[in-house]
Amino acid sequence: MTAQSKNRHCQIVDCTIRDGGLVNNWDFSVEFVQDLYESLNEAGVEYIEIGYKNSPRLLKGSEDAGPWRFLNDDFLRKVIPEKKRTKLSALVDIGRVDPDDILPRSESMLDLIRVACYARDTEKAIELVNLFHERGYETTINIMALSNVMDNELIEALTLINESPVDYVYVVDSYGSLDPDNFRYLIKKFQSVLKDKRLGVHTHNNMQLALANTLVAVEMGVELLDSSVYGMGRAAGNCHTELLLAKLAKPEYSLRPLLGMIEKHMVTLREKEEWGYLIPYMVTGVLDEHPRSAMAWRASDEKDEYLKFYDKLTTPEVFHK
Amino acid sequence: MTAQSKNRHCQIVDCTIRDGGLVNNWDFSVEFVQDLYESLNEAGVEYIEIGYKNSPRLLKGSEDAGPWRFLNDDFLRKVIPEKKRTKLSALVDIGRVDPDDILPRSESMLDLIRVACYARDTEKAIELVNLFHERGYETTINIMALSNVMDNELIEALTLINESPVDYVYVVDSYGSLDPDNFRYLIKKFQSVLKDKRLGVHTHNNMQLALANTLVAVEMGVELLDSSVYGMGRAAGNCHTELLLAKLAKPEYSLRPLLGMIEKHMVTLREKEEWGYLIPYMVTGVLDEHPRSAMAWRASDEKDEYLKFYDKLTTPEVFHK
Repeated sequence: MTAQSKNRHCQIVDCTIRDGGLVNNWDFSVEFVQDLYESLNEAGVEYIEIGYKNSPRLLKGSEDAGPWRFLNDDFLRKVIPEKKRTKLSALVDIGRVDPDDILPRSESMLDLIRVACYARDTEKAIELVNLFHERGYETTINIMALSNVMDNELIEALTLINESPVDYVYVVDSYGSLDPDNFRYLIKKFQSVLKDKRLGVHTHNNMQLALANTLVAVEMGVELLDSSVYGMGRAAGNCHTELLLAKLAKPEYSLRPLLGMIEKHMVTLREKEEWGYLIPYMVTGVLDEHPRSAMAWRASDEKDEYLKFYDKLTTPEVFHK
Repeated sequence: MTAQSKNRHCQIVDCTIRDGGLVNNWDFSVEFVQDLYESLNEAGVEYIEIGYKNSPRLLKGSEDAGPWRFLNDDFLRKVIPEKKRTKLSALVDIGRVDPDDILPRSESMLDLIRVACYARDTEKAIELVNLFHERGYETTINIMALSNVMDNELIEALTLINESPVDYVYVVDSYGSLDPDNFRYLIKKFQSVLKDKRLGVHTHNNMQLALANTLVAVEMGVELLDSSVYGMGRAAGNCHTELLLAKLAKPEYSLRPLLGMIEKHMVTLREKEEWGYLIPYMVTGVLDEHPRSAMAWRASDEKDEYLKFYDKLTTPEVFHK
């Protein structure tokens, strides 16, 4: 049951390595990433976000992370000796990226650099975008934690962004707390201020609404859609690439290669690492909170004591200690 | 992020025992069902569908099924000695129910009897509804496999139903193949013919759209919403009661008791029995097919060979053998 003709404008950005790395500390083998790249390329997925392009010098305490935490162009060239149709993306965080690490696009494996920021850091994000834009990259700004931003602050941030050279601006549901109505409302607001920009969405699956929210975005003309194979991403994870691609049903897309990737790698990986619909993540989604408390709970001996977790988060004297 | 005021008209029918029984052959202990009833009642859920009211004489080969497969009033009275706010529902299938088994409502534990049928059996469904209605029950007709019914046949069925005494008519997504747009379209069609009836929805989660589809129904004024605790139901399962209740956020509702039920029973049950988002179920959803092929696949040694399953279902010479 698809509506193919409406979906021509959409492109998928698969975030399995970048957002999934938040689950396993970027401990993906080169073979895994090569298989993922091949399967995404065969499936017709337009972008792979292959990691973070932060600097290890500016993000201490992550020395044990896998190589996708701090992408290096020489390394990437070995991983993907022959780039195919699927383009490469990397995410950077404000204050953690060293401009000297960013080659001109003509010398780089990367095509797209995305800047994650909170609304209050919009000016810093635009500085980075200016730099990446000058060096030839496609760019996005991904404003996080939208459900906790005051309206006046958001409008101010979007107005600044509209005057920047950024290509896409993201509506990000960091906490997985938004539903289709909320997305419709936010996208409309973004469109009303960002008259000269294209939009993207990044969803989380705490309430099993990631795909539905993404489909609302498609319907409203949003062009970049984030997802992960088998939903792999922090906490409840993301919109599933295989579901999104099946629903979009663009003639260029093929579901089969993604099923092969899931069969070969994702099922066993999911047995080792945890993401997806789990009650503590559902609770933080319902309460519109960062999932960090739920992640800590799932790492504790009390991980299946849901009542205790719920009471902790909903009892003011305990929560606001 | 809720919109409470719009949801006052909705009532939840929890199908954990009835639809979940399709997973474990209705092997629920009395303690499980009592705990479920208590938690649903405390949570404010309006109905529990506690099983099937078919006759074992008319459904041979199910002698090993648990007691929820063939509900008996004396047994039910022992399980729930004191009925509270949550009302009791049972499902019947065409040709499998013995009218002599149906007590007048005043002598019965049941409040609601629902008739599942294919569009072609509508007249038989109405005969049963007439009987149940005369004996004092609330009634529904649940037309299954809507995605495979020709429009003229559906309109004819709905026209007959509109003249019957049935209270609610269900839009059922038997294969989990429908998305919010499809639901919007079907509900509108039902409303245009069933001018004198109230509606219900029963969703499946093959593409993780069960909650989103149910929320579309809410928005369009549908009144009875089916769901299961932790999504327990055949194959990919149903809309999760805990998610639906959290999203509806009626003042009468409380999430906490459901979290207690999940903590006490559902997590261990899910380790023993299988339902939810699994690739073969996703594939039958995408292909708009009954999940029986996927259920057989998951019961085989090849259960994680997704490519082989996908090829089997999408290669015409193999499939149409």
